[in-house]
Amino acid sequence: MACSIAKVMAALGDRWGILVMRDLLLGLTRYDDLRRSTGVTNATLSDRLKSLEQAGLIERRRYQERPERYEYLPTGRGRDLALLMQAMVQIGDKWRREEELEPPLRFVGAGSGNGLKLALVDEDQEGLAAEPEIRIVAGPGADELMRWRVELGRDERGARRAATAD
Amino acid sequence: MACSIAKVMAALGDRWGILVMRDLLLGLTRYDDLRRSTGVTNATLSDRLKSLEQAGLIERRRYQERPERYEYLPTGRGRDLALLMQAMVQIGDKWRREEELEPPLRFVGAGSGNGLKLALVDEDQEGLAAEPEIRIVAGPGADELMRWRVELGRDERGARRAATAD
Repeated sequence: MACSIAKVMAALGDRWGILVMRDLLLGLTRYDDLRRSTGVTNATLSDRLKSLEQAGLIERRRYQERPERYEYLPTGRGRDLALLMQAMVQIGDKWRREEELEPPLRFVGAGSGNGLKLALVDEDQEGLAAEPEIRIVAGPGADELMRWRVELGRDERGARRAATAD
Repeated sequence: MACSIAKVMAALGDRWGILVMRDLLLGLTRYDDLRRSTGVTNATLSDRLKSLEQAGLIERRRYQERPERYEYLPTGRGRDLALLMQAMVQIGDKWRREEELEPPLRFVGAGSGNGLKLALVDEDQEGLAAEPEIRIVAGPGADELMRWRVELGRDERGARRAATAD
């Protein structure tokens, strides 16, 4: 399949696969949270988690023995998809603006607090600042579900960083 | 639906919708060419063209009376999706590189001929060059189908520009 777009879509599967990846990239890890966030049925969620794992985008880890419980984490390949999410956010935000709706999600520089956007630049462009560290925050157009998702994701990512630092 | 990612995916529908948009953004306009390029069935292609039109991403225009024939063109909203395609190409190209495969498609600056890439930059960043005019060319990893698609798309876009200039 000599098309990179087809390759990415084959790995993601469909729109539910994309929404599950959105949540994992925000930092959600647990089945019940993914279910609440996406609103899909158990059958769909289990199926998409399996295919995302087979595609090498996520890994499943046991975090509890009795009863067995698993968490789901994006792999390096899965984290590559952050760019896709940023592109969709940028496009969807533009469409919302045309309907006078504000953005639900914002990507800001962790240092500057300034909004970030995707731009097409020369591969070798000199003087382009290094990719800033990104913070994801709820925007003025966020509903309660989006705020919950963003806060939970941030807490989970913080907890993982703390565990890794131990 | 307070999520811009979900909004974009709802408009695109599924992976076939995305591949049809890829082709229309490359410049393909005709049903038979879309069918050859995507390899989908008539039923799927007709259905996706209808839903993309309903979502306001493409418009259908009659270009011949007897027999009636139509061409399909991206709207302004449809053209916003170029960013999504660039993101997917960038990610898929990275995955291909990890498998020692070369890129099938390249985005280059029309003036410089240099490769272009998406970067996350400060919204208000000074000194960032204006978005360059983009040329899409077949890359070293293109197969015959991709080369055909890119060349046909370029010809069709050229013909439309010429018609508009008349």
